Amino acid sequence: MRASRFFISTLKEAPSDAEIVSHQLMMRAGMIKRLGSGIYTYMPTGLRVIRKVENIIREEMNRAGAIELLMPLVQPAELWQETGRWDKMGPELMRVKDRHGREFAIQPTSEEVVTDVVRSELKSYRQLPINFYHIQTKFRDERRPRFGLMRGREFTMKDAYSFDRDVEGMQKSYATMFDAYTRIFTRFGLKFRAVAADNGAIGGTGSHEFHVIASTGEDALVYCPDSDYAANIEAAEALATGERGAATQQLAKTSTPGKTKCEAVAELLNIPLQHHVKSIALTVENEGKKRYFLLLLRADHELNEIKVSKVAGLKEFRFSTEAEIVEAYGTVPGYLGPIGTKLPVTVVADRTVANMADFVCGANELDYHYTGANWGRDCAEPIVADLRNVVEGDASPDGKGVLAIERGIEVGHVFQLGTAYSEAMGATFLDEAGKPAPLQMGCYGIGVTRILGAAIEQNYDDKGIIWPDAIAPFELALCPMGLDRSEMVKEQTEKLYAELLAAGVDVIVDDRGLRPGAMFADWELIGVPHRVVIGERGLKEGNLEYQGRRDEAATSVPVGDMVAFIKGKLGK
Amino acid sequence: MRASRFFISTLKEAPSDAEIVSHQLMMRAGMIKRLGSGIYTYMPTGLRVIRKVENIIREEMNRAGAIELLMPLVQPAELWQETGRWDKMGPELMRVKDRHGREFAIQPTSEEVVTDVVRSELKSYRQLPINFYHIQTKFRDERRPRFGLMRGREFTMKDAYSFDRDVEGMQKSYATMFDAYTRIFTRFGLKFRAVAADNGAIGGTGSHEFHVIASTGEDALVYCPDSDYAANIEAAEALATGERGAATQQLAKTSTPGKTKCEAVAELLNIPLQHHVKSIALTVENEGKKRYFLLLLRADHELNEIKVSKVAGLKEFRFSTEAEIVEAYGTVPGYLGPIGTKLPVTVVADRTVANMADFVCGANELDYHYTGANWGRDCAEPIVADLRNVVEGDASPDGKGVLAIERGIEVGHVFQLGTAYSEAMGATFLDEAGKPAPLQMGCYGIGVTRILGAAIEQNYDDKGIIWPDAIAPFELALCPMGLDRSEMVKEQTEKLYAELLAAGVDVIVDDRGLRPGAMFADWELIGVPHRVVIGERGLKEGNLEYQGRRDEAATSVPVGDMVAFIKGKLGK
Repeated sequence: MRASRFFISTLKEAPSDAEIVSHQLMMRAGMIKRLGSGIYTYMPTGLRVIRKVENIIREEMNRAGAIELLMPLVQPAELWQETGRWDKMGPELMRVKDRHGREFAIQPTSEEVVTDVVRSELKSYRQLPINFYHIQTKFRDERRPRFGLMRGREFTMKDAYSFDRDVEGMQKSYATMFDAYTRIFTRFGLKFRAVAADNGAIGGTGSHEFHVIASTGEDALVYCPDSDYAANIEAAEALATGERGAATQQLAKTSTPGKTKCEAVAELLNIPLQHHVKSIALTVENEGKKRYFLLLLRADHELNEIKVSKVAGLKEFRFSTEAEIVEAYGTVPGYLGPIGTKLPVTVVADRTVANMADFVCGANELDYHYTGANWGRDCAEPIVADLRNVVEGDASPDGKGVLAIERGIEVGHVFQLGTAYSEAMGATFLDEAGKPAPLQMGCYGIGVTRILGAAIEQNYDDKGIIWPDAIAPFELALCPMGLDRSEMVKEQTEKLYAELLAAGVDVIVDDRGLRPGAMFADWELIGVPHRVVIGERGLKEGNLEYQGRRDEAATSVPVGDMVAFIKGKLGK
Repeated sequence: MRASRFFISTLKEAPSDAEIVSHQLMMRAGMIKRLGSGIYTYMPTGLRVIRKVENIIREEMNRAGAIELLMPLVQPAELWQETGRWDKMGPELMRVKDRHGREFAIQPTSEEVVTDVVRSELKSYRQLPINFYHIQTKFRDERRPRFGLMRGREFTMKDAYSFDRDVEGMQKSYATMFDAYTRIFTRFGLKFRAVAADNGAIGGTGSHEFHVIASTGEDALVYCPDSDYAANIEAAEALATGERGAATQQLAKTSTPGKTKCEAVAELLNIPLQHHVKSIALTVENEGKKRYFLLLLRADHELNEIKVSKVAGLKEFRFSTEAEIVEAYGTVPGYLGPIGTKLPVTVVADRTVANMADFVCGANELDYHYTGANWGRDCAEPIVADLRNVVEGDASPDGKGVLAIERGIEVGHVFQLGTAYSEAMGATFLDEAGKPAPLQMGCYGIGVTRILGAAIEQNYDDKGIIWPDAIAPFELALCPMGLDRSEMVKEQTEKLYAELLAAGVDVIVDDRGLRPGAMFADWELIGVPHRVVIGERGLKEGNLEYQGRRDEAATSVPVGDMVAFIKGKLGK
């Protein structure tokens, strides 16, 4: 590509609404242009990255035996009503009426349509397994679109859907996709981690997220450096810390006036925070009847609401109101505890709390806490459950070391859906005995446009973006110095440009006639990973200058060696 | 590709709602699947054709210097309001509201968005000319979607937009696109014709349509076999037929009771239809004031309403009501004519009518016609204009022969837009004197998915589709006979498959284990243009069988020659 025939438009300053670095750099590099809230035009430089990302995904999906098709954007409401998602999805699902008043969804995902295709096209177990995918524009009417391509409303997603005859087959298809995703993210040249995830609203029996590692990531990833264990914070199991010791203190009611926070009580009593228990009051309403639950966490731990919702009886919990708390515990929030509640309360202790002895907790009395509290002696043994987020240093659930935590950006997700959709939509096949059975489904998404944001959050410096080779808009910028006044430079530029193209290098030659500083600043901002400078002085000594985007300084390379040198750098 | 890893799903019968052959064949071949009215899933076989079409378009657009970007599907209403198209476009423009009640259009085309991009990105004449394009899903809420991909609601279009500093530049960009389109349609391997077109509602100063020639086409294309002249029927200029002779008859009022049609009058009076004049009464209302016009056509000619609207004073014409006719002419429809109207009427005669002498026309009296009417003598000379559609045998407007007419399917359109959009949206650049001037625009569309339908309408037989090589889902079907029982066949199949892949042939090997009849029927229906059969009997004699999709019979080709033979057939 010749820069003079391409469109390059860089900015010194990012617009003020760009809050994170990837958004700022993509705007400054002229890769995207805002059309509306969460809606962007992909400018030529940005589109080149998207296409490279798409092509890697396509190649690996095809290699894994998935078959590409293309499902429509505008999908009839009737299909979404069959699975109940028309009502469940709320305003995030963009809805539209046609001229006849018929309702449609603009697809945020395509489970319904692919299941509709399959229920009419697949008849027999002989046609299974099959995996259909497409790479398509999606729309989600996010409440608060932000961060550029990271949380846009219109975006590109690759979504694949596998269909199998039984659970074993589905798990095999799932493993195949897991491996394909691992190859895809490896080929992108990004540091990533696959973590076990909670299945959430989509239902089903197992799932993993693929995250690009970045300190600015929204998600906390838990992993064990000594083993394969990895899960997102929602799903990572927290084991008990330590073993329960014997009771050594008497239960004592202590005055803690105005101290409603554990930290304040710890300071007042001069007892380390790890000996305090935090109480969280929940209410579950069922047919107008209220049940009260008290969750107990070690004071320095954080509640994990997803885990709470999995405790028996707590699927539909809510936090208690102050009035409910006064009714159940006889006091106001800040002084609650498991000992001597006013009404019967089901006490659920986190595993770590269940192992504590001589702990501090609220006394269910205004301005009082207990010290020296012990299970079995001062109150009944609680229900024990995993209620908290893990923290760095927790034992790994696989028993092979301790956990570490890093930040990530979710860019892929694989799910075992089971028969949730196929049963709702009557998608069956005839098994070997000729009997209809529901299809076992898996679904597999990659946020194509989000990859761009995530890649930048992981790879940038104060000059701009640093693309990995595989997804860079161009692999190499060829920068001639004084193209218009040096015949020697011009000739060598054309020669090298032709040779690099012939060697399969995705090269852009900067023939715009800019000063070196402006030229270099553009390519550094845009993040082209390799640069070759052609100058008269160097040429007279038979040399060109090479500089990698992360290199501190340039390297002098003999003219005749440059193509081989670049091929070596690019692994071609 | 191995058929066992692909998805092939053919039908014996087309669904009853498929009215035209391309729709029937695409449904039967399993290339598309209906999701809703005018909304289709592109199944794997169909998507392969779409991708090949897109790639040819992309290559030629890039070669012509156009730059690819990707504009959003969901576009803010505000931009569409700037050009007035939000109101003008009516229900065809699909409108949607987001969760905050803000209005958006689902793009049917992107003039507004590209002009918005350009007005903020382009500053100087130095950045011109530039041409942006994208290949993107479009939506038009057609009143009556039909004919499969031919008139769908959701479809894929390539749309390009050129920006120039002056009209001369715009015309050069237009010519470049015209040439690129010619290369694109040539590469598709389709018979096509570019015709001059009327600019219609989009405004501007010049346009051409590209049509795929097919006897089932909706549009009539006018061309001169002896010259380059070509136009669609709306735009083709109709010259006068013959020269006006001298008057030889007296004007005579003749009783023609109940004969309101020229054909009936001709029969009654035994005067050839070509001597009769057909009268069409129009009304133009302006600020409550009515003006009456009488259009005159030779009785065997057809009115061209687009031409009428270009006659001075007739831009906003409508057909007169019966009450208006009685008021202006003193009689009912069927007996109108230019001689002796009741009120003053502006008479506009088609060029051919203006050259007639001794003609028959209505007498403005119930049940009476005139014979022997002559201009100048019996009534004033009329205003003369081109009002009619051309017919086969008319003189070509370039004076180089006579016109022929054939049917076509519009698949591309190039427009000179001028400054219509740039002025409405304030898209200016600074010229050499530093003064702002409006950008001169052109726009250029290709209906990507419609190409599939058009290609089939041009290329099919009773067995199915016959794809041109360049856009076939596969170039060659490799059909082994008895793969599961002949080691010799299996071995030769794998060997030839590998060799064909290495030679760059897009081959599918049918390893599904079907009987020969079913296997051949599938590939003939799907329209793969080349087929090689590998059978044990032939192999024993060292031969394979080749058959082109249009060939009557198979050709025996020595095993060792087959790859070269195929490469020859495909021009590789």
